[in-house]
Amino acid sequence: MNVLILGASGMIGGKLARRLAGDGSLAGKAISQLVLHDIVPCDVPAGIPVSRCAGDLSRAGEAKRIVAARPDMIFHLAAIVSGEAEQDFDKGYRINMDGTRALLEAIRAAGTRPRLVFASSIAAFGAPFPEAIDDCFFNTPLTSYGTQKTISELLISDYSRKGFVDGISVRLPTICVRPGKPNRAASGFFSNIIREPLAGHEAVLPVSDGVKHWFASPRAALGFLLHAASLDLAAVGPRRAITMPGVAATVGEQIAALRKVAGDAVARRIRRQPDPVLEGIVAGWPRNFSPKRALELGFTADRNFEEIIRIHIDDELDGRVV
Amino acid sequence: MNVLILGASGMIGGKLARRLAGDGSLAGKAISQLVLHDIVPCDVPAGIPVSRCAGDLSRAGEAKRIVAARPDMIFHLAAIVSGEAEQDFDKGYRINMDGTRALLEAIRAAGTRPRLVFASSIAAFGAPFPEAIDDCFFNTPLTSYGTQKTISELLISDYSRKGFVDGISVRLPTICVRPGKPNRAASGFFSNIIREPLAGHEAVLPVSDGVKHWFASPRAALGFLLHAASLDLAAVGPRRAITMPGVAATVGEQIAALRKVAGDAVARRIRRQPDPVLEGIVAGWPRNFSPKRALELGFTADRNFEEIIRIHIDDELDGRVV
Repeated sequence: MNVLILGASGMIGGKLARRLAGDGSLAGKAISQLVLHDIVPCDVPAGIPVSRCAGDLSRAGEAKRIVAARPDMIFHLAAIVSGEAEQDFDKGYRINMDGTRALLEAIRAAGTRPRLVFASSIAAFGAPFPEAIDDCFFNTPLTSYGTQKTISELLISDYSRKGFVDGISVRLPTICVRPGKPNRAASGFFSNIIREPLAGHEAVLPVSDGVKHWFASPRAALGFLLHAASLDLAAVGPRRAITMPGVAATVGEQIAALRKVAGDAVARRIRRQPDPVLEGIVAGWPRNFSPKRALELGFTADRNFEEIIRIHIDDELDGRVV
Repeated sequence: MNVLILGASGMIGGKLARRLAGDGSLAGKAISQLVLHDIVPCDVPAGIPVSRCAGDLSRAGEAKRIVAARPDMIFHLAAIVSGEAEQDFDKGYRINMDGTRALLEAIRAAGTRPRLVFASSIAAFGAPFPEAIDDCFFNTPLTSYGTQKTISELLISDYSRKGFVDGISVRLPTICVRPGKPNRAASGFFSNIIREPLAGHEAVLPVSDGVKHWFASPRAALGFLLHAASLDLAAVGPRRAITMPGVAATVGEQIAALRKVAGDAVARRIRRQPDPVLEGIVAGWPRNFSPKRALELGFTADRNFEEIIRIHIDDELDGRVV
């Protein structure tokens, strides 16, 4: 099986590449070739034949060049993030919408009908919401990023219906705990308030304890992508965009879980510094879902927020808390 | 007020042009200029200054050329129909999706923030459905046409949110009774079985009497577009795609209404000739809606299917039935 990862330098892309290189197989088939693509250089894991290519998916001819290797399985994780897509309107549409379309057109032209697993987002939804968003709730994104993800989902469903590709869009929850440095993403604090205290640092909490959100660990997210790659999509039918299961937790519940897992001294490293503007932005985000369809299809979430913290400690901190 | 109609040669576009030329005003303002655009030549109604321009909206530079006249109000009705979009994949995306995007980009570049009224469609929905589709039901189109309309809606909402345009998408029911000759559209029989018998001709009914569908008269459709043009969109908020109200009627109810309005001799001109393939296609179409939001915003539907027939007799047949 020839596997392609687009956006292989990202956090999830890198983890996926290492996982596939380690497993050596996917959906019951040996991986003969793994191609990693990103606009920035990416690490090459050991284990199986891996090749790397750099480029901008949205540049003319690039998608065709990538698909020329005739991948059987494509993970499309390439995107610019929400904040940047909001600030740079043209760049967001070029990368997040035109990039997906160029990929689909290249696949259609190649005529190979590969499986395509697309990382979509709960940004496809916009407030106001019911208490829990069910699988039939409409997409009214309140960001350009969410609009671009929703449009990509629609294109993938239509190209799949026409038989040009065998695609599925998995709407990922907010990934938590995100490893690495604090970034400027508006959602960054959800991870910061866990990761930084565990590493001995102070973290700023800009919203109130009652704010509820929808989470998955990086490990659960990898599980979603791998399950989507091996699923029988005939059973999924023409509705190819699926909200993944997750853990709904309030900030207060996040902190309580941190205290339980790592102790009060760690939890006390969180400093409250309310930011009314950010609280307003967060109010427009989904809080909770009822992802019945994904559960029926065998996608599995983390059990609770404590498990999400323990996964971070295991996978990123070698089991050690400072 | 400078008004532009895109797709002015279509059935609704032509009626809208005549109506605006006759009224001489829109949303309480005098119309200083009415520009009619279509890829095929269109009639120029008398009454006010009307200019005509022909061209392909999706051709490079065309949208910019049109928007250079700085319209305050744009009715975007230009599209290729469902059947053609399904047969010619590239043409459908080029006209129905890229055309809308080119228009939005030209508007954004002009910086004039006009009102944009976009004719969308219930093809944005795909089966299976609940008994009546509510305003929060998701868009899972089962045609490329429906996909292109849904994507256009999403773009219009995002460009409106960013302040580049003041847009609204009105999802029109199936227009019935469509005047003119029988066409090859899969939905054509809904109109054929009323229009042809009223004109003294036989009509073929290819589906069973129990098939239910969602209708609006051409007069009601014009009313939706004009109301959308004059609505205070601040009250509408960021969810700018709205399902219009309509009349849900079964084929049996259509025929009963025809019998009541025009007599049994006319109704007996319908010949039943079941087409299982077409019945299968129609099974994927919406049957009924609960368009609460549109009703709250003051959009009004025909009262019942009898009224839809009477409107056809009044507006197209000068009140006469053969």
